[in-house]
Order: sequence, then structure tokens, then C-alpha cells
Amino acid sequence: MSLKSKGISYERELIHMFWKTGEWAAMRVAGSGSIKYPSADILAGNALRKLAIECKSVKNESVYIPKEDIEQLQEFAKIYGVEPWLAVRFHDTQWHFISMDNLQFTKNSVVITTDNIKTKGLLFNEVIGKFE
Amino acid sequence: MSLKSKGISYERELIHMFWKTGEWAAMRVAGSGSIKYPSADILAGNALRKLAIECKSVKNESVYIPKEDIEQLQEFAKIYGVEPWLAVRFHDTQWHFISMDNLQFTKNSVVITTDNIKTKGLLFNEVIGKFE
Repeated sequence: MSLKSKGISYERELIHMFWKTGEWAAMRVAGSGSIKYPSADILAGNALRKLAIECKSVKNESVYIPKEDIEQLQEFAKIYGVEPWLAVRFHDTQWHFISMDNLQFTKNSVVITTDNIKTKGLLFNEVIGKFE
Repeated sequence: MSLKSKGISYERELIHMFWKTGEWAAMRVAGSGSIKYPSADILAGNALRKLAIECKSVKNESVYIPKEDIEQLQEFAKIYGVEPWLAVRFHDTQWHFISMDNLQFTKNSVVITTDNIKTKGLLFNEVIGKFE
């Protein structure tokens, strides 16, 4: 599988998780990496809340995400009127969701590690406000 | 250009129209025709309003749209919590937007003609509530 296909397959996993709740719709945005307008990888929502999600699946222990990627996610979310979230899936761990307030910036990027994601990230059920 | 490419190029035209307002975000949904969940072709929105749009570009004087396509648009819009709209672009005319209340059903489909679209359809600026 190409890197792109692998990325899309992780995004699909997340989309299924939203639909499986029976209360959330979710979808991939076409060409989110290549179109000239700000965008997000995934949109999810219901009548009460809507999320714009930038997704990263990561093999190593840490990942640097260019600051521009975060800025365009925030710009998109502002215009579309939804909550911006970064979702990170380290190999063999669950999806973690990080709000914009909890991002740790270096000069040109945001750094996410397997360590800081545990203190800064929310799990899927926490993001959608479902506690069983 | 294939039929699919032509369809996408019309959808892109509509997406540009939304962004050009400076107040609306718009995007295509990936694989809207092929995924197993209800969907729409285009999403457009701002902080106040959000639309799920099924798009049709039509060569002839009329078009029949399967009732299932409309039903799944409505189902999607209900779960995602947005307004469902049908947007039709007859050759050499502007985009017209038809609300679900104004659709004319036959037994298995919705019929749109160049005649009824003029009485039942709204133009782009009317849909977004912009009157200059």
C-alpha cells in the first residue's frame, strides 16, 4: 500500500468509528491536501457539534507537523464554523485527539510524541462526550 | 473528459462560487457516490448556516433523479445537522437550488425540468441570502 493509501485507510477507520456511534456523521474531504482552499482531512458532526479534523498516522515515537498545516486547519474551521482538532494515531495505540489549546509549538511546527499525547490528548469517546 | 470528470468540474465551479463570497467555505465529499454511508456531493457553510448539496449537471431539458438519492441526502443532512439542497445546472443556465419542500416526485424519482426550475428554484445569491 502506498503512503497515501495507508493514510486514507486510517482516516476510514476514524470515519467508521463516528458512524458506529449512531449519532455522528463523518466523511473525508476530497483532495484536502491538494486544493487551493483551506481544508481538513475529515469532517464529523451531528445537530449539536461539528468537528474539522486533521489526521496523522505515525510510525515513530514522535511527529512534527508543519505550522502551516495547523494554521490552515484553524482558518478552515473558523470560516466553516466548526471545532478544529488534530487526531493522531501512533502505531499500536488508539486515536488521540488534541485541541488547538493543547498543541506544543516549536519554531516552525507542532511536535507530538507518544508521551505528551497521553497527557494532552483525548480518546475518541471523550471527544464525542460519550462516557460509558 | 469522462462523465465523472465533467460532473466534478461542475461541482468545482460551485465550490469556487461559495469561496468567492469570502464568507462561505465549501468542499467536495470524497467518494460520495461509492461509500456505504449516506452522503452529499458538496458541503458548504459558515458559522451561521450549513448546506449539504446534491449536484446535477444536465444536458437535456429535464432530469429524473432516483428517489433513493434524495432520501439518502435527507438522511445525511438530518444526522449531520445541516440543510439539504438539490443544485441543478442545466446546460447554458445558472445553478438553481431546490429545497426539499419544492421537489416534484413521481413514483420512483424526482423530476426537474428547465421550466419548473424557474418557478421552484433559487439562484445562488438567493440561497446564500445575498441580495445586491
